[in-house]
Amino acid sequence: MFLKNCWYVAAWDHELIDGKLLPRTLLNEHVLLYRGDSGQIMAVNNRCPHRGALLSDGRREGDGLRCLYHGIKFDGAGKCVQIPGQDMIPPKMRLRKYPIVESGHLVWIWMGDPARADRALIPEYEPMLDPKWKGLPAYLHYDANYLLIVDNLSDFSHLAFVHTNTLGGSEEYAYVTKPVVVEKQEGGFRVERWHMNSESPPFHKRVIPDRERAAPVDRRNHVRMLIPGIFYMETMFAPAGSGAEKGNVVEAREYRNCQYMTPETERTTHFFWAYLNNFEGNDSTISRSLLNSLIEGFMEDKAIIEQQQKTLDEDPSFQPLAILADGPLVHFRRQLSKLIEAEQAEAAAATARATSAA
Amino acid sequence: MFLKNCWYVAAWDHELIDGKLLPRTLLNEHVLLYRGDSGQIMAVNNRCPHRGALLSDGRREGDGLRCLYHGIKFDGAGKCVQIPGQDMIPPKMRLRKYPIVESGHLVWIWMGDPARADRALIPEYEPMLDPKWKGLPAYLHYDANYLLIVDNLSDFSHLAFVHTNTLGGSEEYAYVTKPVVVEKQEGGFRVERWHMNSESPPFHKRVIPDRERAAPVDRRNHVRMLIPGIFYMETMFAPAGSGAEKGNVVEAREYRNCQYMTPETERTTHFFWAYLNNFEGNDSTISRSLLNSLIEGFMEDKAIIEQQQKTLDEDPSFQPLAILADGPLVHFRRQLSKLIEAEQAEAAAATARATSAA
Amino acid sequence: MFLKNCWYVAAWDHELIDGKLLPRTLLNEHVLLYRGDSGQIMAVNNRCPHRGALLSDGRREGDGLRCLYHGIKFDGAGKCVQIPGQDMIPPKMRLRKYPIVESGHLVWIWMGDPARADRALIPEYEPMLDPKWKGLPAYLHYDANYLLIVDNLSDFSHLAFVHTNTLGGSEEYAYVTKPVVVEKQEGGFRVERWHMNSESPPFHKRVIPDRERAAPVDRRNHVRMLIPGIFYMETMFAPAGSGAEKGNVVEAREYRNCQYMTPETERTTHFFWAYLNNFEGNDSTISRSLLNSLIEGFMEDKAIIEQQQKTLDEDPSFQPLAILADGPLVHFRRQLSKLIEAEQAEAAAATARATSAA
Repeated sequence: MFLKNCWYVAAWDHELIDGKLLPRTLLNEHVLLYRGDSGQIMAVNNRCPHRGALLSDGRREGDGLRCLYHGIKFDGAGKCVQIPGQDMIPPKMRLRKYPIVESGHLVWIWMGDPARADRALIPEYEPMLDPKWKGLPAYLHYDANYLLIVDNLSDFSHLAFVHTNTLGGSEEYAYVTKPVVVEKQEGGFRVERWHMNSESPPFHKRVIPDRERAAPVDRRNHVRMLIPGIFYMETMFAPAGSGAEKGNVVEAREYRNCQYMTPETERTTHFFWAYLNNFEGNDSTISRSLLNSLIEGFMEDKAIIEQQQKTLDEDPSFQPLAILADGPLVHFRRQLSKLIEAEQAEAAAATARATSAA
Repeated sequence: MFLKNCWYVAAWDHELIDGKLLPRTLLNEHVLLYRGDSGQIMAVNNRCPHRGALLSDGRREGDGLRCLYHGIKFDGAGKCVQIPGQDMIPPKMRLRKYPIVESGHLVWIWMGDPARADRALIPEYEPMLDPKWKGLPAYLHYDANYLLIVDNLSDFSHLAFVHTNTLGGSEEYAYVTKPVVVEKQEGGFRVERWHMNSESPPFHKRVIPDRERAAPVDRRNHVRMLIPGIFYMETMFAPAGSGAEKGNVVEAREYRNCQYMTPETERTTHFFWAYLNNFEGNDSTISRSLLNSLIEGFMEDKAIIEQQQKTLDEDPSFQPLAILADGPLVHFRRQLSKLIEAEQAEAAAATARATSAA
Repeated sequence: MFLKNCWYVAAWDHELIDGKLLPRTLLNEHVLLYRGDSGQIMAVNNRCPHRGALLSDGRREGDGLRCLYHGIKFDGAGKCVQIPGQDMIPPKMRLRKYPIVESGHLVWIWMGDPARADRALIPEYEPMLDPKWKGLPAYLHYDANYLLIVDNLSDFSHLAFVHTNTLGGSEEYAYVTKPVVVEKQEGGFRVERWHMNSESPPFHKRVIPDRERAAPVDRRNHVRMLIPGIFYMETMFAPAGSGAEKGNVVEAREYRNCQYMTPETERTTHFFWAYLNNFEGNDSTISRSLLNSLIEGFMEDKAIIEQQQKTLDEDPSFQPLAILADGPLVHFRRQLSKLIEAEQAEAAAATARATSAA
């Protein structure tokens, strides 16, 4: 069960260059994405309604598609416009079309009722639209439910143990720090955590000048998680004792990070992310180093999270036992469940109305 | 659910040379085929009734078999004739034996009630018994239900799009031609289709003399589909305008093609075929070229058809939407369903009679 | 359904050297085995109760374990002793601990009620504790239910057909010999079988002096099978006619063999064994030869038994048809079923008592 009436990231824009047909399963639905000759990005059901052949094995013609089994052609609106050897076109011969918005190199899709697809509901991430922040778009595929990734991002004590030698830096992070802010919100949560007078973690050391590497830092992570599975984080490293916690951030180095968890199926996830910096200048050496570091770190998460999925599959009766740090993730799952239940109830009511009217 | 009381192709005769034990699943049943010392081809259930060991891992002894787990021996009639270390042989210790007919290099099997296995019911293909027609026996395995292959062969507009550069020749075939005859019959259907003044398709060009290659042709495909899944086709290429459609076939080149779809399971199929010609003379160069061309073309079908099976598995609610050209396949599926239902009803009635008598 | 209140072999002791964390599924439960700093072998549930991360991906600390997802630490008794970032430790945060006994290089585990884990119930094998008997510890993994291996060991006529050229020696073994003793016991069975004046089998010929190889032997196999799946066998080869069957065993060569079938899941098995001899002297050449011969023979069994499992999975309605030689295995399965049923009934009654008391 997924939340339907909301925006999900379906792709990076570079995945659709040159009119490429990109089949991608989203929320268990088989979607075909492509950019038409008009420049518009299209998203339709990737099944020819005639015999179920994949349209991704077909051919793009302008803004439309031709199935290459029996040659049936659909226009950019999903309407059938040609059946070779037949003049009459049955009205049911059409493709489901999904609302799409392109913004800041991201391709957003609306999987629910198209009439509700309001662009203003997209949770834009300012740094992604601001040229001051630089970074490279990235993607990983997870063999795990997207909420296990949300869980992972909800408690940063895992940095200490999972990412000791990559993103974390030391186990001390877990032993000596706690969140200073945990704010449960209607559409997600917010957590702020400081690690004062600590060593810089490996991924950061790699991209700063030699003279800064050994110096102790005051480190801040400020995390926002938004329904249905969107993570925005500000990270700052300031010289230890420089008063960053009081607002003196002149000498600080900062990062901006966005992560988008889009369910593929109940057991698999598309994971899009970018890790942005504002100090690399004109080349992309620092962005490439950060990309490598983040992949290294995320592979550590992936191993644990995919194993969790296996555990749940093997032991469906396994009930996790919450600790204090799980407050945000428990809140998030509850909020999301309420929204999904409301959506399902509304859909059931609409079906009932339609049935009694008929 | 399969039709049981009919003949299916189980194997080519060359698959059983040298007394080889050939295990093959047919209609979900585990059959073991072999030629005994007497020259007869045998087909029995490939499970030792003692502990379920495979008899295909056993040893042929004359017309019989010995299981090589505990040494139990069965004769050519499936009767147990030895249990090492024991004198009494329980009457239930026997193998199910299937009626077999060998004809025209094909091994036919009857999966239903042996008492009804009438050789006269075999739908022999004359060209397979006539030495004038030459060709090579071939086999492909499909990860798809056999009816999806029947569907494919029921509408030749797919030649235009799936086989443009192999068996078809151009997309024009679909746009400008329609069947001139569509005859729904009790046990299948018949379709005739002409493509006048067209270019020869690649597979044909490869086997004709240089001087004929560029000349336009009038092309005829005449297709018969028979229950449970047997396809016979006559193909003719005549010089364009030579009056072949009126019966003037002196200068025509002709092919005869048989294809046998035998269910392995609900999701997999044994596909036997031969593509015959009457103009190759004494070597088999043309037969080998045609074999290669047909494999090339069938691999194109296989990719689409196996993907259809995946679609059906992923979206069990997917309902194909028929177009006019689907008339024959819809008719065929209905005819077959009726026969299967009648067979099931009869079996249920027999079981009921047996129960009330007991 | 497995018998829980009994000892199973979980591992060989050498599998736990250097504090190695050994995850092993036993009776469908996910167990983690390791030797702590105290020298004790520990067995706990291999799931962190917090979020289900594998403790085998964690870190051993002394006799305890630390989960490396969020750093939660458990002591050697399975008690949680640290949650980073939190002072209060919830009482439910603990690991299930399994009783373990180490004996004769074997690690025994009790999967049922720990209060009943009585060391005296371990069916020790004397030769494994006696330095006169030498051999190498061995392990195979089976993709088959453990009872199919018990079945295999219950009828030695399979030696003749499955192991003709390895452990058996000839098909004659099945044709001319029968058990002289078949004793059905409460916790298993006992079978004795002699093959008089026979050729030595290949595995034996490889380890005896040249002069003995061609001489005919009187061969005795004496087998005991114990619930839940433990096989002990004495094998003797005496010069033919020397009167071994009357107790004259001076010139005989003897082996002792133990095999332990521990269910991993309903469809897979851990198979531990040792094949011991008392005549190799100070090097281990003979033990190594016997190890190789037994692996060779067991791989022959494995092929048949794993195929049986596939047959049962494909044809769940397949009912084996017993022959006389299946008496012991039928008895064994009945005995085991009774014990499992009694255990289940007792557990259900305890649950009912607990429910009505609450």
